[in-house]
Amino acid sequence: MVERQNGLESLYSIIPAGGIGSRLWPLSRADAPKFLHDLTGSGQTLLRDTWERLAPLSGADRIMVVTGRAHRAAVEAQLPELEDRNVVLESEPKDSSAAIGLAAAILLRRDPDVVIGSFHADHVIRDTRGLRRAVQEAVAVAQAGFIATIGISPTEPAIGFGYIHCSEPLAIPGAPSALGVDSFVEKPDLATAKSYLEGGNHLWNAGMFISRADVLLAQMAESEPALVEGLTALAEAWDTPRRGAVVDKIWPTLTKIAIDYSVAEPAAAQGRLVVVPGHFDWDDVGDFASIAKLHTGGRKSDLAILGEGARVLADSSSGVVISQSGRLISLIGVTDIVVVDTPDALLVTTSANAQRVKSVVDALKLSGRTDVL
Amino acid sequence: MVERQNGLESLYSIIPAGGIGSRLWPLSRADAPKFLHDLTGSGQTLLRDTWERLAPLSGADRIMVVTGRAHRAAVEAQLPELEDRNVVLESEPKDSSAAIGLAAAILLRRDPDVVIGSFHADHVIRDTRGLRRAVQEAVAVAQAGFIATIGISPTEPAIGFGYIHCSEPLAIPGAPSALGVDSFVEKPDLATAKSYLEGGNHLWNAGMFISRADVLLAQMAESEPALVEGLTALAEAWDTPRRGAVVDKIWPTLTKIAIDYSVAEPAAAQGRLVVVPGHFDWDDVGDFASIAKLHTGGRKSDLAILGEGARVLADSSSGVVISQSGRLISLIGVTDIVVVDTPDALLVTTSANAQRVKSVVDALKLSGRTDVL
Repeated sequence: MVERQNGLESLYSIIPAGGIGSRLWPLSRADAPKFLHDLTGSGQTLLRDTWERLAPLSGADRIMVVTGRAHRAAVEAQLPELEDRNVVLESEPKDSSAAIGLAAAILLRRDPDVVIGSFHADHVIRDTRGLRRAVQEAVAVAQAGFIATIGISPTEPAIGFGYIHCSEPLAIPGAPSALGVDSFVEKPDLATAKSYLEGGNHLWNAGMFISRADVLLAQMAESEPALVEGLTALAEAWDTPRRGAVVDKIWPTLTKIAIDYSVAEPAAAQGRLVVVPGHFDWDDVGDFASIAKLHTGGRKSDLAILGEGARVLADSSSGVVISQSGRLISLIGVTDIVVVDTPDALLVTTSANAQRVKSVVDALKLSGRTDVL
Repeated sequence: MVERQNGLESLYSIIPAGGIGSRLWPLSRADAPKFLHDLTGSGQTLLRDTWERLAPLSGADRIMVVTGRAHRAAVEAQLPELEDRNVVLESEPKDSSAAIGLAAAILLRRDPDVVIGSFHADHVIRDTRGLRRAVQEAVAVAQAGFIATIGISPTEPAIGFGYIHCSEPLAIPGAPSALGVDSFVEKPDLATAKSYLEGGNHLWNAGMFISRADVLLAQMAESEPALVEGLTALAEAWDTPRRGAVVDKIWPTLTKIAIDYSVAEPAAAQGRLVVVPGHFDWDDVGDFASIAKLHTGGRKSDLAILGEGARVLADSSSGVVISQSGRLISLIGVTDIVVVDTPDALLVTTSANAQRVKSVVDALKLSGRTDVL
């Protein structure tokens, strides 16, 4: 590997743009997934925001997007710079190991020394300089043969995120802040989250992975050999006329498993995962409470209003209103409220209940009312 | 006056169907006033319910409806039995003294001995037998030359209603329970309402007036002589070809004043008002808290759902949902909530704030957003 000026020349970004974001129903749904919404008030979609964060890092010609066939047109409309060779379409969702693994396998065939960085399409980061610093270290970690993740320094005892339990500092050239990973920890309760914040040994798991493509696939092959065999066969055919036939044959057979389980956790257990602490703002905007917080700065008395042409008349009310119907919305004396107004479905809940939105989606699925999902 | 079998032969019912019901916005509005809604779940409008309560009392051919020109078609669709001679159309709203006074003046010209009973178009009463007993006594009171009102025996310390402070029992033939009226009392605070309930000398003011037409107009003429002069001129022309010209000339000039101020309060002060206690259920369904209570029986944990074809998915929620848009409405963890979903406007509030809905309407008027009023 030739050393280059900013250390990012080997990086190829991968954006898996797949999840619907069920906890953001009825805003997010099958035909309008979370990454196609503007949840920050930036005036553009989260996917576009993600693109604009990554283009300065890897170059716009080195960003690969993995998405469902149904979203191709919407994705390409958002990302006119996206090159055809960087579009990977899934005929059906197969979870993150298959999505990221296929991208890695394709890129590996094109460049045996490629370092891939996988970044969610629908997270929010505003401090792009902080992100760059962390990615530069993570790429150095990857060059050293480890799988790197970026863990976010907690700013509060959040109970909505998973955590990374860090171990000792490592001496990796170009990655002075890199730490070993003891383990991944599920979403904690508040007391535990407070102890994490005080202890200083836990970072938020932001689900970003940076690794040499060959290292990532080798790690995945240890736990999911059949999956990687399939991905390798797909990659071999990808840049040939056989692509369509091979995809039709192999893609449906692939194991559905999150990359956390096929790669991150086994690598951590084997001492192959390294975390770079990220000192920048980050949010997965996983539910309406996150959105409210993002827009009100956590001020309980504020009312955040999202939606083009929103017409809201509020009296003594706080929380978040997301307006997509153009209707006049009136709130009187409701606090911490969440109102999501779409043309065919209305949600009224509170920030405290935001995590339960997914259960409504599950209930709608069970009752067959998929017209609004 | 000839004595008749059931004592109701002289009665002519008047239904002033005018008020919009601003505290029920966005359900009630200029082109869909409260009386044209089904708020009880009976499957028919409040106006139709009112008609069906009164027809057995005065006869369907002896019910006069006073309404705005804009509502003529809707009213006639609700009341196919309504005879042309019993329709009084207002070119513009002039409050209850003009509406009821004109009906009384027209009926007086047709029958000098007529007893009129004025009943709101948009109140809820289910116990029609209880109503009949009270109306029979009230007609007897009217025959004796008094102005009668029916006061409802309170069943709880309501703070949303005005009260009638009763004085001593009167000895009026055919009206054994009739009482004198000391005064009308505005909506009290809770402590006062409790003392009223315990004291037993206060009844809810249901705004029903029963009187000989000549007595009513004479009383009104004492405080509003010009108004009654105008009403008399209108009545003289009413059943003639001159009606249109006279209406155009006189109606716009009439004083706007509630009948409470032009008739009831002065009559009470002069000892001419008599109250018959009504032992039946009654509600003015004046706001969404009333509607919620009407449907949940006051059980705080219940969720009432109104609206044809309402699709509501509720989890740990209580209050009232009124659905007019056909959209799926999802509630999660919201209690005592009021959600009113119409095609162009959405209201989210709580029962505790139901009285403040009118302020939204006022704000919309001020800001010129009359498209949703």
